[in-house]
Amino acid sequence: MKDYIFELPMKVRSYECDFESIVNNAVYQNYLEHTRHEFLIAHGLDVVELHRQGIDTVVARINIAFKSSLHDNEEFLSKLNVKKEGLKYVFYQDIYRKKDEKLIIKATVDIVCIINGKLGNSDIIDNLFAEYLQ
Amino acid sequence: MKDYIFELPMKVRSYECDFESIVNNAVYQNYLEHTRHEFLIAHGLDVVELHRQGIDTVVARINIAFKSSLHDNEEFLSKLNVKKEGLKYVFYQDIYRKKDEKLIIKATVDIVCIINGKLGNSDIIDNLFAEYLQ
Amino acid sequence: MKDYIFELPMKVRSYECDFESIVNNAVYQNYLEHTRHEFLIAHGLDVVELHRQGIDTVVARINIAFKSSLHDNEEFLSKLNVKKEGLKYVFYQDIYRKKDEKLIIKATVDIVCIINGKLGNSDIIDNLFAEYLQ
Amino acid sequence: MKDYIFELPMKVRSYECDFESIVNNAVYQNYLEHTRHEFLIAHGLDVVELHRQGIDTVVARINIAFKSSLHDNEEFLSKLNVKKEGLKYVFYQDIYRKKDEKLIIKATVDIVCIINGKLGNSDIIDNLFAEYLQ
Repeated sequence: MKDYIFELPMKVRSYECDFESIVNNAVYQNYLEHTRHEFLIAHGLDVVELHRQGIDTVVARINIAFKSSLHDNEEFLSKLNVKKEGLKYVFYQDIYRKKDEKLIIKATVDIVCIINGKLGNSDIIDNLFAEYLQ
Repeated sequence: MKDYIFELPMKVRSYECDFESIVNNAVYQNYLEHTRHEFLIAHGLDVVELHRQGIDTVVARINIAFKSSLHDNEEFLSKLNVKKEGLKYVFYQDIYRKKDEKLIIKATVDIVCIINGKLGNSDIIDNLFAEYLQ
Repeated sequence: MKDYIFELPMKVRSYECDFESIVNNAVYQNYLEHTRHEFLIAHGLDVVELHRQGIDTVVARINIAFKSSLHDNEEFLSKLNVKKEGLKYVFYQDIYRKKDEKLIIKATVDIVCIINGKLGNSDIIDNLFAEYLQ
Repeated sequence: MKDYIFELPMKVRSYECDFESIVNNAVYQNYLEHTRHEFLIAHGLDVVELHRQGIDTVVARINIAFKSSLHDNEEFLSKLNVKKEGLKYVFYQDIYRKKDEKLIIKATVDIVCIINGKLGNSDIIDNLFAEYLQ
């Protein structure tokens, strides 16, 4: 696998933490989603705008291995890479604590395009990611 | 002020709690919103459907006094009443712990109607609430 | 695989929905967590209390296949079963829309016990689940 | 009232938006809380650490006027000032959209100190904020 192609620096907010002062598991899915959206925006894609055009990018499957925990106020790096497998875009998304580069979660997220209600293939997206999808 | 006109039984979910095992303050706003929506649904109003008709019910102001805390798993009652003041619907929304009827929060929420982008008055809503708005 | 051993009826709240009026993906992880906690409580286990005894039940991996979407106000059933594999408790957690029994998500969640900071085996939990873990 | 004494640049994340693609009302309370915590951290105060010392800073009342809406991806500035009234710290917290400096919300948040379970006065906090509390 190639190096990561996108990296977003973020920081834990206290309201994201649970009774053990560590980030609640479900919040990582928010971090992953936000990272993908920032990646798309950096490539000129607006998910809401695509939706208006009848193209929805939909999460078909998510697999997260929780390796360690982030605590309140900690800074972290949310990194991603993407490959295409058939109609699926497979996002490899890993989160590392910033100060010691410790791996926090390791995730794969399968995204598919639903075009006017049917599973399909979006040339708009393929063209934008062309350099990464070879 | 009259008695409450609507009451929704709810229960704290663990992911809604913070590092002290008490419900995070912002979550109460979710509880209040959910209670209003259930109240509207009980009267045949669907906020998403109204939105499609160009009528948006918008929160203009919220005032919450936090009197005590709810803990993980605790059952509570979310109660409301409503009055009309000019164009505003003022919702009085209080939350009580179920087991001892302790007052947890005391809130007022001002709702206004935005009709096709402008502050307005909705007969649909007034008619549905007629019995409460005298 | 045996039938489900626990089932929790729930209902979508409007603040859990995104710009398409469907439940945000990360919210399903909250639903799954809440269901496991209700299952544990129904068996007399309190996760916060276990934490105070030095026993933490920790999610090691989560795998969710998103099959269909829940919409605002829809009622659903969150069902689970559990098996033990080595030190792991594997929770099979599926969510069905109530009205048509449509499968919404299919998930497996691996839980491990961390006892005083180390991966371990909890007799307290094994005994409580004895009937399901054979 | 003096100028703002603290300002935090933030950006809307898509999972914070509701079916109208605007930030859900309850999320603003998260923004306000995160801003106060960053302000406290900038002054060397850690809320979780204070909690361990028996000092809890508790929200007693929140009053938010919603003036306009933030949309997905918009950048905003979360600003605050603080005054002391009796035992209360009153935080004046306003949020402005970055691109046009439009006022989005105007809030006051009353914070009190609970010291070993009782309403009290914390010299630690007063000393740190001394320059602002005259």
